[in-house]
Amino acid sequence: MSGNSFGTLYCVTSFGESHGPAYGGVVDGCPPGLELKNEDLQKELDRRKPGSSRHVTQRRETDTVEILSGVYEGRTTGTAIGFLIRNEDQRPKDYSAIAEKFRPGHADYTYWQKYGIRDPRGGGRASARETVIRVAAGAIAKKWLAERYGVLVRGYLAQLGARPIAFKSWEAVAKNPFFSPDDSITKELEQFMDALRESGDSCGARVNVVAEKVPVGWGEPVYGRLDADIAAAMMSINAVKGVEIGAGFAAVAQKGSEHGDEMTPQGFVSNNNGGVLGGISTGQDVTVSIALKPTSSIRVSRRTIDTQGKATTVATTGRHDPCVGIRAAPIAEAMLACVLMDHALRYRAQCGDVVPPTRLG
Amino acid sequence: MSGNSFGTLYCVTSFGESHGPAYGGVVDGCPPGLELKNEDLQKELDRRKPGSSRHVTQRRETDTVEILSGVYEGRTTGTAIGFLIRNEDQRPKDYSAIAEKFRPGHADYTYWQKYGIRDPRGGGRASARETVIRVAAGAIAKKWLAERYGVLVRGYLAQLGARPIAFKSWEAVAKNPFFSPDDSITKELEQFMDALRESGDSCGARVNVVAEKVPVGWGEPVYGRLDADIAAAMMSINAVKGVEIGAGFAAVAQKGSEHGDEMTPQGFVSNNNGGVLGGISTGQDVTVSIALKPTSSIRVSRRTIDTQGKATTVATTGRHDPCVGIRAAPIAEAMLACVLMDHALRYRAQCGDVVPPTRLG
Amino acid sequence: MSGNSFGTLYCVTSFGESHGPAYGGVVDGCPPGLELKNEDLQKELDRRKPGSSRHVTQRRETDTVEILSGVYEGRTTGTAIGFLIRNEDQRPKDYSAIAEKFRPGHADYTYWQKYGIRDPRGGGRASARETVIRVAAGAIAKKWLAERYGVLVRGYLAQLGARPIAFKSWEAVAKNPFFSPDDSITKELEQFMDALRESGDSCGARVNVVAEKVPVGWGEPVYGRLDADIAAAMMSINAVKGVEIGAGFAAVAQKGSEHGDEMTPQGFVSNNNGGVLGGISTGQDVTVSIALKPTSSIRVSRRTIDTQGKATTVATTGRHDPCVGIRAAPIAEAMLACVLMDHALRYRAQCGDVVPPTRLG
Amino acid sequence: MSGNSFGTLYCVTSFGESHGPAYGGVVDGCPPGLELKNEDLQKELDRRKPGSSRHVTQRRETDTVEILSGVYEGRTTGTAIGFLIRNEDQRPKDYSAIAEKFRPGHADYTYWQKYGIRDPRGGGRASARETVIRVAAGAIAKKWLAERYGVLVRGYLAQLGARPIAFKSWEAVAKNPFFSPDDSITKELEQFMDALRESGDSCGARVNVVAEKVPVGWGEPVYGRLDADIAAAMMSINAVKGVEIGAGFAAVAQKGSEHGDEMTPQGFVSNNNGGVLGGISTGQDVTVSIALKPTSSIRVSRRTIDTQGKATTVATTGRHDPCVGIRAAPIAEAMLACVLMDHALRYRAQCGDVVPPTRLG
Repeated sequence: MSGNSFGTLYCVTSFGESHGPAYGGVVDGCPPGLELKNEDLQKELDRRKPGSSRHVTQRRETDTVEILSGVYEGRTTGTAIGFLIRNEDQRPKDYSAIAEKFRPGHADYTYWQKYGIRDPRGGGRASARETVIRVAAGAIAKKWLAERYGVLVRGYLAQLGARPIAFKSWEAVAKNPFFSPDDSITKELEQFMDALRESGDSCGARVNVVAEKVPVGWGEPVYGRLDADIAAAMMSINAVKGVEIGAGFAAVAQKGSEHGDEMTPQGFVSNNNGGVLGGISTGQDVTVSIALKPTSSIRVSRRTIDTQGKATTVATTGRHDPCVGIRAAPIAEAMLACVLMDHALRYRAQCGDVVPPTRLG
Repeated sequence: MSGNSFGTLYCVTSFGESHGPAYGGVVDGCPPGLELKNEDLQKELDRRKPGSSRHVTQRRETDTVEILSGVYEGRTTGTAIGFLIRNEDQRPKDYSAIAEKFRPGHADYTYWQKYGIRDPRGGGRASARETVIRVAAGAIAKKWLAERYGVLVRGYLAQLGARPIAFKSWEAVAKNPFFSPDDSITKELEQFMDALRESGDSCGARVNVVAEKVPVGWGEPVYGRLDADIAAAMMSINAVKGVEIGAGFAAVAQKGSEHGDEMTPQGFVSNNNGGVLGGISTGQDVTVSIALKPTSSIRVSRRTIDTQGKATTVATTGRHDPCVGIRAAPIAEAMLACVLMDHALRYRAQCGDVVPPTRLG
Repeated sequence: MSGNSFGTLYCVTSFGESHGPAYGGVVDGCPPGLELKNEDLQKELDRRKPGSSRHVTQRRETDTVEILSGVYEGRTTGTAIGFLIRNEDQRPKDYSAIAEKFRPGHADYTYWQKYGIRDPRGGGRASARETVIRVAAGAIAKKWLAERYGVLVRGYLAQLGARPIAFKSWEAVAKNPFFSPDDSITKELEQFMDALRESGDSCGARVNVVAEKVPVGWGEPVYGRLDADIAAAMMSINAVKGVEIGAGFAAVAQKGSEHGDEMTPQGFVSNNNGGVLGGISTGQDVTVSIALKPTSSIRVSRRTIDTQGKATTVATTGRHDPCVGIRAAPIAEAMLACVLMDHALRYRAQCGDVVPPTRLG
Repeated sequence: MSGNSFGTLYCVTSFGESHGPAYGGVVDGCPPGLELKNEDLQKELDRRKPGSSRHVTQRRETDTVEILSGVYEGRTTGTAIGFLIRNEDQRPKDYSAIAEKFRPGHADYTYWQKYGIRDPRGGGRASARETVIRVAAGAIAKKWLAERYGVLVRGYLAQLGARPIAFKSWEAVAKNPFFSPDDSITKELEQFMDALRESGDSCGARVNVVAEKVPVGWGEPVYGRLDADIAAAMMSINAVKGVEIGAGFAAVAQKGSEHGDEMTPQGFVSNNNGGVLGGISTGQDVTVSIALKPTSSIRVSRRTIDTQGKATTVATTGRHDPCVGIRAAPIAEAMLACVLMDHALRYRAQCGDVVPPTRLG
């Protein structure tokens, strides 16, 4: 399995650079018969689209997706689903200034060292714009999971910089440009972002994702665990530096008598485990939390080196998200959906004949 | 790739149950010519062996490993390395009490639901005893990485329950039964563990792992990232609920100007990124931190259900670690070593001809 | 690994249907720094292009390829290489007649049974037109193999229907529309094909492929053998029903004293093994021979059933190759090149440090 | 996926050398609940056991298999099934003569060149004795396929040296030491083998395998085809140089009107395609034929080189099969069974919800 594909049975392959002609994706393994049209992907792409508010990059992209294969008369045929998203607002010239030096915290340096060559235009392959492919692939997974199992995957902003955001409601999430579950603090968040943008700096974010109605039994011990695959999927998102399942790092300070979720005939009493035990889904909500680092392309001047190894400074102008976490909820949802769908398929491959024993709830 | 294997080129396959006849492992893809004998694996296995202090499980296992293939006259031949660790101290009877009911926080329930059948003896396949295979496979990876690249992978206990442990020295780690990097607090930790054990409860832990001298360039964007593979490897360890690379969740509250590690001709000025940028190693230390939940097998009585779905309570006697995190450092080291070795091989496959540009430091 | 990708390190993913908007491919794992432009792919695509003589399908396709990613300023960057070939001459209406019944010998029936739905236009995903992706991916592999190792991969028509064709010269192959290595029989072949076409029937073919200058040591025993991967790659080509390496089926009647290729300090004395022993390349030419069955879309009327399971007959009009084997040489070359490149990369991953012992020749 | 594993969902991993302590295997992905005991594997191992007649190697091995995991109270649990077969009759000294020179037609040379080191004892990893693992893994697959789908996989000797053997009956196959389907020629075969053995030479063989009652729909186009995976599996067997599906190379000389299998409401009229169309099973018998080359370890003296590259001659004494094809039927059956089981699981992963359209027969 090469680096630009992921998934065992629901397999996503991605290509494209930020200022090349297009991004493209291939989804292989989707069951046949699923109703699917461009709009199903577009709807999700529009949620992470740039330029949707002043708090994100002002690059003008419609992110229009075209399905090129795998669908016939509105239904998936079981063959590979290829799709394309043309880049429209390329401004390679914006990047001439950084072609010869490396942004602190950016992949500029590592790509150049690894490959001996790099596409410097807008971060090339390292650009977070690659996540359009994840969102499109996730849209298919979400649709299938919802129709086949009633699974619902949703995410929200749980912290913006140092400001934690308490969960109020899913309705709130759609009402503001931050995916904040508390709409009452939207003005505060806007003021914070405005000040941040003005300062030329950036900030990090925490995003939570929840998958409801996941059946018990998905996940393959001991290495192909559901939570292991989720961790990889999340950590593969640009800027992510940490992943938690359930109680996450809070579990360190918990006692076993506090952490272990008790069971009654009506179901689990709590969900410290985040819906996964021994790498297998429990039937509870799968809860995931991720840390996104602050954007590395900032206007603040910083020490760095150039391609000759000489000391210099760099300040990035051009169009960038001051907080990549703001648009990360749809991306994290997509990754979780892809992993769940992969395991749904893997489950029925091996355990399709299992007669379910007594279940909770 | 099935659930009991991991790695693309340095590929580890594991089998065995806690109270079956043996655990076995297969390491495939190891370069030929590496000096290797049973003792190289045994040395690492002894570090995570049960019964080494009163603070861990009192199960009596020598964990004696036998290499069965892939080594000829003391050197690896490039063929698959099979090895076996016989279980010696099986007491299946200890588990008759829990064969019919589920421990809160344990994989008992999910295995039973997924497969419709389970081996209840000591957790069966879900037992943390499976990590012997990881440690043995990691021992080979560590040896090769050290000899070929000078890479050094080491771990330590960074928090025990609510008690954070500041890093003092690597020397300290070997001097106490907790892998604590601060030997001056050993008595305190012992008292804490003695009280915990007496209470019949368990606690969580945080373990940090550091890989030094990792060359720049390892890791495959965009999904096969070094950090994504590390995250999966760590999350696949029993009881792990969270993974951080570099600054981890602390990055959320950082500003970009603070987080992005500046570069000078002498090297990076800081290491918030934990040695990985854009999924590719930077040449700095790779730093990983993991959260381990408290052991689910505790003497404290808890609500649960039985295999008929009826309400009951469960309290686990038998031999268990009151804190699985105490023995987790060698396991986390092993997983990190395996991932690094896999990527070392993948790097030279694709980039073996790259003439390294100017490097830092 | 899903069904529309192949290769471990040089990984090719394909999508597209015969009468959909486009075929697309993704090549992942190509080393960076390789000079590459559209023309490098186009050159090979032109060799298998339809409409190039009256003996192949008259569908009008320029098969114009556009590289969409992975190349910057004329060199590969090490990221995924995506490319697209738009379908130009779609005539879905031609296929309305066969949408409701199944061609004997065609995948119509199995796709419909497997997926419960199928794209009937020109065979949909089962169309041999999919091989454009293989040829494009193979063009990159051929170029890299030639530049890096001097490997040369070439194929020719070794039998047309019942007529075996003796190898005369590689020069001859390029001089006639059949890839025949004996140009003196071109007229005979043309007359045979003209008569065949007129009869409304089709015929099979045998194609041989040879890779010269393959270094010793490529191939991973015991399942990932070079010859096993070649066999899979060849058998995955539409219409292929048999694969031979070296002496192939002739080895059955050979004695061991005749088959085993003797060695002298100057090299191997013969090549019955086809350049592979124990799954590992010997340093000799890798020789492969494949059997292609006759095209199933013929004008001769045949018994079949319709989608209701009722008895009927079918005769296929429309544009079809009366012998798919005629255009198969470039395809078989491409598949062999992809497998060799994959193993070249796998070789240096594991054995990059092996100091070669005394070599032959 | 590394070289010593095969299969996507029914995944087999193998280790061991001919004169090391043991061979071992791991079967991952087997559905839970299958009744399984050592005897189920032993029964198949006994069919390919050495020393069963004077026509095969006289090495004394009981090939006793021990299942080490994945089975609890007589049923598979869904976890990895590890098993071990100890080598009993090791005589490494027999091989000192060939440690310094290479047998023509043997993998001695390529292993040594690839890895720079090799285990020369009895061919080390390249020994055909490795096929015990395939047979054991195949035994599990056969059992599951038979119980779940009624699939029956059987093989026979179709040619011994230059002598083709017409199929008479499956009953005959079990009645003679050659797996010959025509028991009336047993004496003739024995005389041929006696003379061959006396001459110190060896011969090749053709083996046919048939899988009956394979449901329609197994196989993943376009690279993960059922026939492509079968081709790889067969070519990975030691000594195999050719693979045919259905009509195989005979298809080259067939007309389309002759080759394409007509359909009626009662089913297919013929089976030139060998039960696979477009890479997907048709519901007919899957028919496979393989060519095995003559054994390379012969007493006849032949030219070769030594490890210093100097010219010499070699003649192999010790215990060897004069025709490896004689014991190949159980091995080929096993490989076909493993591939079919893998695709059975893959089928229900993706197409588990497909409502089968009208079916034939």
